[in-house]
Amino acid sequence: MPSLEAVEPAPAGELGSQFLAEIREQPRALEGLLAHAGEFARVAALARERDRRLVRMVGHGSSDNAASYGVYAFGILPRLTALRDSISLTVYYGSELDLSGSLVIGLSQSGRTPDVVEYVSRARRAGALTVAVTNDPASDLAVAAEALLPLGAGEERAVAATKTYLNTLAALVLLAAHLAGEGARCEDDLRRVAEQLDGVIPELEERMPEVALPFSFVGRMFVIGRGVELATAREVALKLLETCRVAAEPLTATDLAHGPVAALDPFFPVWAIATHDETLPAVLEATARVSETGATLVASGSAAEEIARPDYVLPVPRPPAPLLSPLLSVVPGQLFAWALARAKRLDPDRPSGLSKVTFAR
Amino acid sequence: MPSLEAVEPAPAGELGSQFLAEIREQPRALEGLLAHAGEFARVAALARERDRRLVRMVGHGSSDNAASYGVYAFGILPRLTALRDSISLTVYYGSELDLSGSLVIGLSQSGRTPDVVEYVSRARRAGALTVAVTNDPASDLAVAAEALLPLGAGEERAVAATKTYLNTLAALVLLAAHLAGEGARCEDDLRRVAEQLDGVIPELEERMPEVALPFSFVGRMFVIGRGVELATAREVALKLLETCRVAAEPLTATDLAHGPVAALDPFFPVWAIATHDETLPAVLEATARVSETGATLVASGSAAEEIARPDYVLPVPRPPAPLLSPLLSVVPGQLFAWALARAKRLDPDRPSGLSKVTFAR
Repeated sequence: MPSLEAVEPAPAGELGSQFLAEIREQPRALEGLLAHAGEFARVAALARERDRRLVRMVGHGSSDNAASYGVYAFGILPRLTALRDSISLTVYYGSELDLSGSLVIGLSQSGRTPDVVEYVSRARRAGALTVAVTNDPASDLAVAAEALLPLGAGEERAVAATKTYLNTLAALVLLAAHLAGEGARCEDDLRRVAEQLDGVIPELEERMPEVALPFSFVGRMFVIGRGVELATAREVALKLLETCRVAAEPLTATDLAHGPVAALDPFFPVWAIATHDETLPAVLEATARVSETGATLVASGSAAEEIARPDYVLPVPRPPAPLLSPLLSVVPGQLFAWALARAKRLDPDRPSGLSKVTFAR
Repeated sequence: MPSLEAVEPAPAGELGSQFLAEIREQPRALEGLLAHAGEFARVAALARERDRRLVRMVGHGSSDNAASYGVYAFGILPRLTALRDSISLTVYYGSELDLSGSLVIGLSQSGRTPDVVEYVSRARRAGALTVAVTNDPASDLAVAAEALLPLGAGEERAVAATKTYLNTLAALVLLAAHLAGEGARCEDDLRRVAEQLDGVIPELEERMPEVALPFSFVGRMFVIGRGVELATAREVALKLLETCRVAAEPLTATDLAHGPVAALDPFFPVWAIATHDETLPAVLEATARVSETGATLVASGSAAEEIARPDYVLPVPRPPAPLLSPLLSVVPGQLFAWALARAKRLDPDRPSGLSKVTFAR
């Protein structure tokens, strides 16, 4: 018997059923987070009381992608500098930075990522205000941090994160909004986003198998976004890597022009996320350069229809506030990954070589 | 006549001759930077005088890759938090952050990258201490910033940066060392690195065409590093993208395990950078997982020989201080890109669709 996993796949109807179920659950997961809204108000009050002005976020994989969004949520709402901090500087090199004015946010769905737990423990001893954002309120990370913000997404079983990614975005923007004194409005807006997700998910799910099919033998892609949508670009690329074995690289619209555009040709598809905010001209400029190379162009996001000469258009609704667009624009990428994995006869529920909790250092 | 550029390449002996000449020039370029050592001492004194404790670096492409190194140089030597700041938060979203305690470093070889110049101008008006690190002391960036640190690399003509990347690393570590009161020792160490480069470049150059040949039809790769070598992973991946049209994605050794490892198979080569510092165990753990997938493994860096079961080993000398290893470990990647581009009949001096100065927003 050949030993390749692909030889005996699950019946075609079941490949990725868990992954799809969790994509569909996202509106309910988002409401699950909002049930904890009071805890966000309390943590924000604590951070204001202790005058925390520098936000340090740490996480890996989807959590780190969500942190890219946090940079904008904290920068645009309470106008605080937020950074995806280097874990290895603290954990491996033992560099003792001044953390007295820092709000540290440890991001881990499982709450068991070893170096995130270690970073948060050290930061707490060094005087940082530490907050765990996790889907498991009893996890090591929740214990290590001074405060807890539960994701409330319900158990996530597919290896590739979907609803916990969405809820991590929501957690970061809700905390940022409370720090800016706009918590109540943000909660209302997030409820509206849950409704918009309810509308768009079934629609995209129905279209996606046909859209994904021609990409069945694609080995590489670029995914481009800018500003708040850089997080989406990173997350969509990660879904394609882990569920479809596509070497998908996320790039800002501007970085594309600083080298990578040279790699494009008609067999190198590009997924672009365009949104109705100040970054739209930069994204349109970048997608125009993509078109010149003859590369296949997938346009997604709330401003997908603004992109000239796309090969596929996958729009999402405009959210009540532009800052919330990444909560919608990730969905076409999730569903494309689901449909493409199935077209490739891969099981997105159980990608080869991965487990749900990553203990790698 | 067909219009494809590849139809009439330069004679084979000349493809990439400029790129190679500039790789070879790197030891002299590094000495060129050291001729400006006094200016680094002066800028460091100014930053100390004004009590600047948060370092914000901005750049694109190779400059941004070098900024990844700056995070460690400033974190390990003067123990300052340094971040690759979001350009779009300031330039597109107009978010007015508190920059009164910030040292802002604008990184651009040409000094003409529009959004970097714009960011630095705004930061200066907002009260940041602004420094331009550029190879052109008469550029817009040099004019926009309060202080100038010239790269002194001599004119760079190949589109893909090599000597200006090396000198940007050197500029960041030299400024960090002066801030930590260790400027003189760092200068001595950098002179020693220039000598080590003189030894290793000809040796690697001779070996590389044979090493690169089997990769002639490779379309995708991962490049992994950790800590100080994340900058190297990013820069090697960018060289492969822009000169060889390889979809090369840089990853930290830890992030590899958070998803991307699922994409690996025997036709997906991985380039790993291992160095003799606190991150070595994490890199060895990651490369062991790579080996399990059957992926071809290229081991480089000063600790290349510590990696188990590599297919190719490309070691570099151990520098006088572990923090300086990225100045050496980028060289095998540069020379591999040069040799692979030639094997693919591409001209690394003039990658398709790129120009030396990038005006993209």
